[in-house]
Amino acid sequence: MDIIKSIACAFLFLPTLANAQRQEVPVYLDNSKPVEERVEDALSRLTLEEKVALTHAQSKFSSAGVPRLGIPECWTTDGPHGIRPEVLWDEWDQAGWTNDSCVAFPALTCLAASWDTEIARLYGKSIGEEARYRNKNMLLGPGVNIYRTPLNGRNFEYMGEDPYLAGRMVVPYIQGVQANGVAACVKHYALNNHEVNRHTTNVIVDDRTLYEIYLPAFKAAVTEGKAWAIMGAYNLYKDEHNCHNQFLLNNILKGEWKFDGVVVSDWGGTHDTGEAIRNGLDMEFGSWTNGLSNGSSNAYDNYYLALPYLQLIREGKVGTEELDNKVRRILRLAFRTNMNPQRPYGALCSDEHFDAARRIGEAGIVLLQNRDNVLPIDTDQAKRILVVGENAIKMMTVGGGSSSLKAKYELSPLDGLKKRINGRTEVLYARGYVGDPTGEYNGVVTGQNLRDDRSPEALIDEAVEMARTADYVIFIGGLNKSTGQDCEDSDRAGLALPYDQDRVIRALAAANKKLIVVNISGNAVAMPWLKEVSAVVQAWYLGSEAGNALASILLGDVNPSGKLPFTFPNALEEVPAHKLNTYPGKPREDGSHIVDVEYNEGLFVGYRWTDKEKIRPLFPFGHGLSYTTFEYGKATTDKKVIKAGEPVTFTVNVRNTGKREGSEIVQLYISDKKSSLPRPVKELKGFSKVRLQPGEAKQVSITVNTDALSFFDDSKHEWVAEPGEFEALIGASSTDIRDRIKFELK
Amino acid sequence: MDIIKSIACAFLFLPTLANAQRQEVPVYLDNSKPVEERVEDALSRLTLEEKVALTHAQSKFSSAGVPRLGIPECWTTDGPHGIRPEVLWDEWDQAGWTNDSCVAFPALTCLAASWDTEIARLYGKSIGEEARYRNKNMLLGPGVNIYRTPLNGRNFEYMGEDPYLAGRMVVPYIQGVQANGVAACVKHYALNNHEVNRHTTNVIVDDRTLYEIYLPAFKAAVTEGKAWAIMGAYNLYKDEHNCHNQFLLNNILKGEWKFDGVVVSDWGGTHDTGEAIRNGLDMEFGSWTNGLSNGSSNAYDNYYLALPYLQLIREGKVGTEELDNKVRRILRLAFRTNMNPQRPYGALCSDEHFDAARRIGEAGIVLLQNRDNVLPIDTDQAKRILVVGENAIKMMTVGGGSSSLKAKYELSPLDGLKKRINGRTEVLYARGYVGDPTGEYNGVVTGQNLRDDRSPEALIDEAVEMARTADYVIFIGGLNKSTGQDCEDSDRAGLALPYDQDRVIRALAAANKKLIVVNISGNAVAMPWLKEVSAVVQAWYLGSEAGNALASILLGDVNPSGKLPFTFPNALEEVPAHKLNTYPGKPREDGSHIVDVEYNEGLFVGYRWTDKEKIRPLFPFGHGLSYTTFEYGKATTDKKVIKAGEPVTFTVNVRNTGKREGSEIVQLYISDKKSSLPRPVKELKGFSKVRLQPGEAKQVSITVNTDALSFFDDSKHEWVAEPGEFEALIGASSTDIRDRIKFELK
Repeated sequence: MDIIKSIACAFLFLPTLANAQRQEVPVYLDNSKPVEERVEDALSRLTLEEKVALTHAQSKFSSAGVPRLGIPECWTTDGPHGIRPEVLWDEWDQAGWTNDSCVAFPALTCLAASWDTEIARLYGKSIGEEARYRNKNMLLGPGVNIYRTPLNGRNFEYMGEDPYLAGRMVVPYIQGVQANGVAACVKHYALNNHEVNRHTTNVIVDDRTLYEIYLPAFKAAVTEGKAWAIMGAYNLYKDEHNCHNQFLLNNILKGEWKFDGVVVSDWGGTHDTGEAIRNGLDMEFGSWTNGLSNGSSNAYDNYYLALPYLQLIREGKVGTEELDNKVRRILRLAFRTNMNPQRPYGALCSDEHFDAARRIGEAGIVLLQNRDNVLPIDTDQAKRILVVGENAIKMMTVGGGSSSLKAKYELSPLDGLKKRINGRTEVLYARGYVGDPTGEYNGVVTGQNLRDDRSPEALIDEAVEMARTADYVIFIGGLNKSTGQDCEDSDRAGLALPYDQDRVIRALAAANKKLIVVNISGNAVAMPWLKEVSAVVQAWYLGSEAGNALASILLGDVNPSGKLPFTFPNALEEVPAHKLNTYPGKPREDGSHIVDVEYNEGLFVGYRWTDKEKIRPLFPFGHGLSYTTFEYGKATTDKKVIKAGEPVTFTVNVRNTGKREGSEIVQLYISDKKSSLPRPVKELKGFSKVRLQPGEAKQVSITVNTDALSFFDDSKHEWVAEPGEFEALIGASSTDIRDRIKFELK
Repeated sequence: MDIIKSIACAFLFLPTLANAQRQEVPVYLDNSKPVEERVEDALSRLTLEEKVALTHAQSKFSSAGVPRLGIPECWTTDGPHGIRPEVLWDEWDQAGWTNDSCVAFPALTCLAASWDTEIARLYGKSIGEEARYRNKNMLLGPGVNIYRTPLNGRNFEYMGEDPYLAGRMVVPYIQGVQANGVAACVKHYALNNHEVNRHTTNVIVDDRTLYEIYLPAFKAAVTEGKAWAIMGAYNLYKDEHNCHNQFLLNNILKGEWKFDGVVVSDWGGTHDTGEAIRNGLDMEFGSWTNGLSNGSSNAYDNYYLALPYLQLIREGKVGTEELDNKVRRILRLAFRTNMNPQRPYGALCSDEHFDAARRIGEAGIVLLQNRDNVLPIDTDQAKRILVVGENAIKMMTVGGGSSSLKAKYELSPLDGLKKRINGRTEVLYARGYVGDPTGEYNGVVTGQNLRDDRSPEALIDEAVEMARTADYVIFIGGLNKSTGQDCEDSDRAGLALPYDQDRVIRALAAANKKLIVVNISGNAVAMPWLKEVSAVVQAWYLGSEAGNALASILLGDVNPSGKLPFTFPNALEEVPAHKLNTYPGKPREDGSHIVDVEYNEGLFVGYRWTDKEKIRPLFPFGHGLSYTTFEYGKATTDKKVIKAGEPVTFTVNVRNTGKREGSEIVQLYISDKKSSLPRPVKELKGFSKVRLQPGEAKQVSITVNTDALSFFDDSKHEWVAEPGEFEALIGASSTDIRDRIKFELK
């Protein structure tokens, strides 16, 4: 009879679950029950060994489920720009599958430069659908580490220098991803602001700076985006690795922010079983065989949270309270993702996704300079366009570290221009320089082979010769995804463009007045030739649709509307980390290999520094031009005096005074006129991207609440909005303020 | 606005779909719509290339979905005894995953020997759960090819010689599997009754035999089990390969039986694009690079249903009607399996599954002979038990071809006995003989290394010496899973036990009266020593729980209740295929490599032959003893005269006349006393397994309808029940008939 009963039970699943029959289903499998009840029910059924198995990897990208109970495995995938191809079970080599090509979306710097929260939602939705189709239940992204130095090799994966902007962009991205039943795993929490010595860097930062600059985007991800997972960073804070850090994980993340998801270690970021048990880590993943060999045939048994953990519990040296806490979170993750029968099926490489990639790229490209309106390119007038530079033909979706992708296709800038121009104007190409022709990463050739053995002189001469007779010259250079450039596990050597590009640009500028420089990078670069060239376009890493998105902007099909999410300094000396000589830190002399990095600039990162030091950067935060012009009217406010907790709205009329449709990003900065603690001159607290037809005007209103006036008082350990006078600054960039309104907090 | 709309739509999936919002979901993703409507909607969205991509493999075990639409890939897994470990994308080597150990269930011959439909349902449910947990949506099994010759290397994967028994057992197996949202893929359709020349054998069989013997189990699988998939066989029928066979697939399967699932080729069983298009194949899978190279970098593009198909359509040489038909079936499969949000999550290696494996084994082990009630073993009396034979220690879950498994564990018979006896009696072991110490399959060592370099004489002498002082000797031998034994792609050389086991058994019998022979095999073997030994147990391949199941039976914890699903002949000459010299067929002399096999014995397979020829086999079909005894009362019927379409019930009182609980399989055979066409003496048309306490009696009723009286009239091409006199034979085996009742069909 037992057989018959249990069979009957299995059959119930296929037809809809009738109420009368529900008691047959165990609580943890009953979708009608609250998740927390299901979590407790599942937890109560697990053995100690099953619990411990849940807390660490079983392969490069997966961790075990509870097979006997039908609780699925957890399969993660590198993001945040696309779904990484399958690798072998325990090797980094690709598994040779043919179903895992993906859409490469633009890098997150580009998304941040769009200042468009709906574009962020589209990004999250699209990449989440790709992850879901590939049966991944956790996307290892997005990244929201603050841009502290332009040398950080991983800035391209993050969302710029401003905590408010990064926070606004990360929330809809997460919501878009998680609508697919795929967890977003926000990374790298926290203070992981450069790559050199990333495993040994101990960041020393005051509480106020931590809370005001380095945590807000993570906090928004957790408290507003409701991220289901977060990844600990490699580095240390207060002498504890951030993957098991009492302060960051237990006190702040799980304590203050009430995070109920899983804390995932970065791969190989776990270093101690005791700390991993106590200090908030929930799941340990690894790059190689982590931990110490204990003679098991399965390398994963050596992980800090594997047999060593089990042994401590068995020996009674550690209790199971922490374990149950971890397991509850992991079970909750399962119910939110692959045990949610309502989750959709996702999609991979759909037209919609490629279209999204193109739109994100178009929305994020920033027109930095456009003398004499040289852009957009007028193909009716031009007979010949010369394209120069390695980045016009170089694959940028491969390399750069864990974000490397196997894109279904990647249309290069040159091919995109040719496709768009379609023979109406001649498009010529000259190499100009040879940078990194093979795209090596960790010694492995990752991209196509672009070898060219001619001398630098020959390449420049050829380009200059061709430039003389061209109607336009488009130099497409910048950085790439090789070690030492925009690439994980390394930082840049300096701010300058590599491979002597400055020399090529100057030679071209001398040969042709209509020189457009397209800088492809995830970081600011020095532009000593800026005044010699007509136009400069910041084009980021644009992914699969790079060529189409860039051509749309250069040819004027799409009016550029992106604005910089970080400051372009003239030189490294304008960057406080370098000015104050706090990068890359001081190795301790105690044999610990730890490198202390003191964030002595405190709050004054990016425009907060240039404002304070009255530096005029190469291009300021929030800067970006359009092919049309916008006129700002006088700003107004709905109240001049507000009480704590009360919102206040600022309104400005913005008119498109040019001849074509365009979008303007209106920025609101708040300045605290007088404070008990030193404050930045101004801080971004609101923005709105508004699309306007030629001649059209719109009232743009931005509302802030008292939070926007607050600072973190580290003596009280709380956010404080001090009564007094404030000023709202409304402008087109951090240095192009169009109007100011004083108001008072009572 | 479009972005906002589509995001809103994605969010709808996570909460339950409110009616008002349903119109946002495309029909094919709307679970509330009928499957056929969703199929048509999905079909209408596909490009030609996407349709063709659905019809062939993309890797060793998977075929593409429609990524851009979120229609998942189809992932198959070898069954039918457990879930095969992961292999590399396009290599047969195991992928080295550590999450893919499974429960090895007993071979299907064992299941058939249980004659227990609820055990079959438990089997299907359990293995289906394992497939589901491993994210497979198609289990490549069960197999129901009829046992025509004991030499067939693949009989162990099938369910015996009788179409009725196989049909009754396959239906609940399929239902159990498919309750998990996993398709059962019944195989190998059809007439694949031996392995030698399996790719070139052309079976010549009359229609009546085809319909009455070789098709009924498949028909039951399709029309009653509602199997969602079926696999074409390698061999040919009517000169067409069965994977694209007009008669078997279009006329019978899809025409007469109205099969609406997918026809899957056996791996590498496709041989012609035109036939594959027209003759009913839906999905082509392959063993290697199938088809002809066309220069594509992806070997799967060369498949018969890949680029060659696409090209024919593009050139207008073939229309798309067949393609749409295939695609509809493939889409239907997706909606039934991985696009059914109600499907459960499965489970892997659960206690329940191991318990099921043990119970299936215990239910299927057949006690063939038990002189002087030597069994069960009385450990109270015995001081020393000697176990002899390689199969006592040999892994049997590895090897045998595609059914080879990576079992989480496999308890050997010797270890099972030791565990059960637990030291109360001494258990000694002697090798006795060395068979196939490494378990080679296709030249590769598949099992553990059991090398023993002593001479046969030394081994026998040792065993005999030890046998003299033992209270019981248990010889555990039989066949194994090596090439030439019970193994895919080869047949056995003869009926005899290999490795001179007969000699060992005879030597042991001379040394000890209490000799129990346990034959582990999926086929009948010759037993020239039968009269010299006390007991014979047919133990099959029992999987993970082999040792426990066998010990339960030998020690009497479980009373044996299995009965033979096929006849054990005394010699090959008693098998019609061999008697009539129709095995392995005649190679054509036209250079075609085709080997014609004429099924000249017609209907008279198994007991139908021994009945007709009045042969007394070694052990008859349906034979099996118990540790208790059963007494059959006089059989009765509810009607002596029936009309066409009317059911008739036969009832018999069965009493347990022994001292312990036991189960008896009551068998009903029908004999057509007079017929216009020759008919077998009797045919199995009903059975019932009944459990009885000591002294308990039960009325066992078996109802049949007119179908049970019918034969296939090949001149009319229809089933005919001719009015006249019939006889119902009720018995304990095909030769142990306890009562007969005449009745008349009006």
